[in-house]
Amino acid sequence: MTRIVLLAAALVLYASTGMAQTKATIDKLNDAWCAAFNKGDAAAVANMYADDATVLPSGSPMVKGHTAIQDLWAKVSKDLGDIKLTTVELHTMGEVMAYEIGTVTAKTKASPPQDVVGKYVVVWKRSGTSWKLAADIFNMDK
Amino acid sequence: MTRIVLLAAALVLYASTGMAQTKATIDKLNDAWCAAFNKGDAAAVANMYADDATVLPSGSPMVKGHTAIQDLWAKVSKDLGDIKLTTVELHTMGEVMAYEIGTVTAKTKASPPQDVVGKYVVVWKRSGTSWKLAADIFNMDK
Repeated sequence: MTRIVLLAAALVLYASTGMAQTKATIDKLNDAWCAAFNKGDAAAVANMYADDATVLPSGSPMVKGHTAIQDLWAKVSKDLGDIKLTTVELHTMGEVMAYEIGTVTAKTKASPPQDVVGKYVVVWKRSGTSWKLAADIFNMDK
Repeated sequence: MTRIVLLAAALVLYASTGMAQTKATIDKLNDAWCAAFNKGDAAAVANMYADDATVLPSGSPMVKGHTAIQDLWAKVSKDLGDIKLTTVELHTMGEVMAYEIGTVTAKTKASPPQDVVGKYVVVWKRSGTSWKLAADIFNMDK
């Protein structure tokens, strides 16, 4: 009985440690995503996506693959800056896939800048030791 | 060697059968979702979501839980009808979680009706023998 309790405790600890590690990893990746986007480095942003990733932008059709994703973010970053992402929920599955629900704020590059408030769902997939964005969709609150 | 090949073939068959079954299940659920939505049965739509599901509608903040989800779809169905969902990609993970990328068409209830074209990402989770929507986000192409 004691062994079973210890085993169960170890599994819970393992699961929560794994989850906390994944959360910390995703946090860092989101920081890197924002930093790259905010300095207009669309190539660095695109490199964070899986080879077969799909991005579903608000206001235009979905795009797939590195080149199209890079072009998309290059275009968006001409109009938007100061992007901040806030994770609201992160659900992991077997440490190989996760989905994240979050909110996003940004400012337009118009004069004067307008606040943009939106939200997103991102599916992350682990490839070897690194996590990549596999699906990325967002929309605006207004 | 033959045994390993047979085992590998059996695993591929199992995986592809599981995937095909999941695809067929999700197709049926999407048909049921559309049928319920198109007849304005927001309660039936809401029942297809997991208890902790989040819906992230275009144009308003995210909502969570059955009551809020039912209220959302009741409101949306006043303005939109003839919804059709088309799965573009379905990725399953361990037969317990899947994410779906798709396109949506609908018609406004204005006179004359306007065509609406959009896309979505849905995260599905299996609860016992049934699949439920866990996250649902969509946006418009224009």
